[in-house]
Amino acid sequence: MSRGDLFIVGGNEDKTGAMPVLAKFVEISRARPGPIGILTTATNYPEETGEEYSRVFEDIGAPGTVCFHIGTREEAEEDRLEEQLEQLASLYITGGDQVRLTSILGGTAFYSALQKVWRKGLVIGGTSAGAAVMSRQMIMSSSVPGGGGQLIVEMGAGFGFLEDVIIDQHFSQRARFTRLMNAIAHNPQIIGVGVDENTAIWVQEEGSFFEVLGEHTVTIFDGKKLTYVDVAIPHENKDITISGVRLHSLAGGYRFDLQKRELMITQGREQE
Amino acid sequence: MSRGDLFIVGGNEDKTGAMPVLAKFVEISRARPGPIGILTTATNYPEETGEEYSRVFEDIGAPGTVCFHIGTREEAEEDRLEEQLEQLASLYITGGDQVRLTSILGGTAFYSALQKVWRKGLVIGGTSAGAAVMSRQMIMSSSVPGGGGQLIVEMGAGFGFLEDVIIDQHFSQRARFTRLMNAIAHNPQIIGVGVDENTAIWVQEEGSFFEVLGEHTVTIFDGKKLTYVDVAIPHENKDITISGVRLHSLAGGYRFDLQKRELMITQGREQE
Repeated sequence: MSRGDLFIVGGNEDKTGAMPVLAKFVEISRARPGPIGILTTATNYPEETGEEYSRVFEDIGAPGTVCFHIGTREEAEEDRLEEQLEQLASLYITGGDQVRLTSILGGTAFYSALQKVWRKGLVIGGTSAGAAVMSRQMIMSSSVPGGGGQLIVEMGAGFGFLEDVIIDQHFSQRARFTRLMNAIAHNPQIIGVGVDENTAIWVQEEGSFFEVLGEHTVTIFDGKKLTYVDVAIPHENKDITISGVRLHSLAGGYRFDLQKRELMITQGREQE
Repeated sequence: MSRGDLFIVGGNEDKTGAMPVLAKFVEISRARPGPIGILTTATNYPEETGEEYSRVFEDIGAPGTVCFHIGTREEAEEDRLEEQLEQLASLYITGGDQVRLTSILGGTAFYSALQKVWRKGLVIGGTSAGAAVMSRQMIMSSSVPGGGGQLIVEMGAGFGFLEDVIIDQHFSQRARFTRLMNAIAHNPQIIGVGVDENTAIWVQEEGSFFEVLGEHTVTIFDGKKLTYVDVAIPHENKDITISGVRLHSLAGGYRFDLQKRELMITQGREQE
């Protein structure tokens, strides 16, 4: 058994029309038997959000859906959760606030069960907050202090399905270039992956590479060969200086090798 | 005699209070005798814009100002212009539309005189459109076609004070990351320099390096070591894919070597 693939969506994916992102998620999920689970912990509107994804997934071919409306740590300790997760083909983590995901689920029976079932092959998808939470280190929030000044980025622990990667979502649409570069300046060993809206990365083969799909692009910041960093000092109102980041921007269909940190040029050909 | 320094401002520089950007421009200008010229060709409000800069420059120590309200190619052919330029310490090119600058002034007597006087040491500053026009190749405009789709960037010829550089302005404030990367994808030999608002680069020693000053940062995209480019195809609604851009982001006080394409680590020390 190997770990399940990850399907990381930059938010605001189409839920009508051709739905390239969600249709691909359903297709990947169908490689395994069972329904698609929908985890609504991130949102303050779990019922509406769960209903919408249920309808959409079933419309585009999912054999069934199961909502996980876990809103408290107590609910996340219920015994039946592991068994329920084991019956799923995949789990989709909705948007909302990523800090709700980690603060409600972190360290609970649900969290342990999810890790266990994922290691046995459960495909895990997530959008927006559900995308941010995928990595070991996660961007919790960012803010510009009152009266202007430079960006403060708050980092925290995510679910850890991806090591040495930080995901940022709504990337081009919310102009998060500076925010992700800031995260890299503080963690140069990590690859920053900025996923645009209605766009996804499909992480395959135990996290060794991903493929881009959907409407827009994915931007990758690699800090490994940085030659200089001078991090921002908030109270001195000083911006970061950073030199030698390696940058990639990938449109749909392109693949990126997370080990070699290189674009994989295998367009139009099957891999060996 | 050597070429004058360039002072390239990302737009929206403070015109009240401490005015770090414009105060520095006046200080640099004062190294030479004569008033500061103000070229208002880019703007549709030449009188108001000229008056405002005159007042500001004189308030912060300029020995005088002279407005160049050149609004037509005919006006740009007047004989007295070269003599007027020769008497200036510096010329400041205001914001507006960079295409007005090149279409009204390109190839005129004013343009030739400006090149000649600059080669003898005239300092040239410019903000926004006046910043964009500094380089040989210039971003004229960019647009996203109706109904969404990917960015189309229109390039044209600038004034050519800087070779192998493309300037973009209002950089972080207008989220022009994708636009400048697009320009680099089409011109990998060129360095893309994105200057934030109320921030400037002071290009010194015949264009060999620049220093960042002002409120925010300057972002540099170096395409020289690109390993892969697949340019956007507008009518196929396809985004660019680009791999191996070298990226730098410099806060105020830092210097960048335009020949070596490297950050110069000489903070706090005088150069030899």
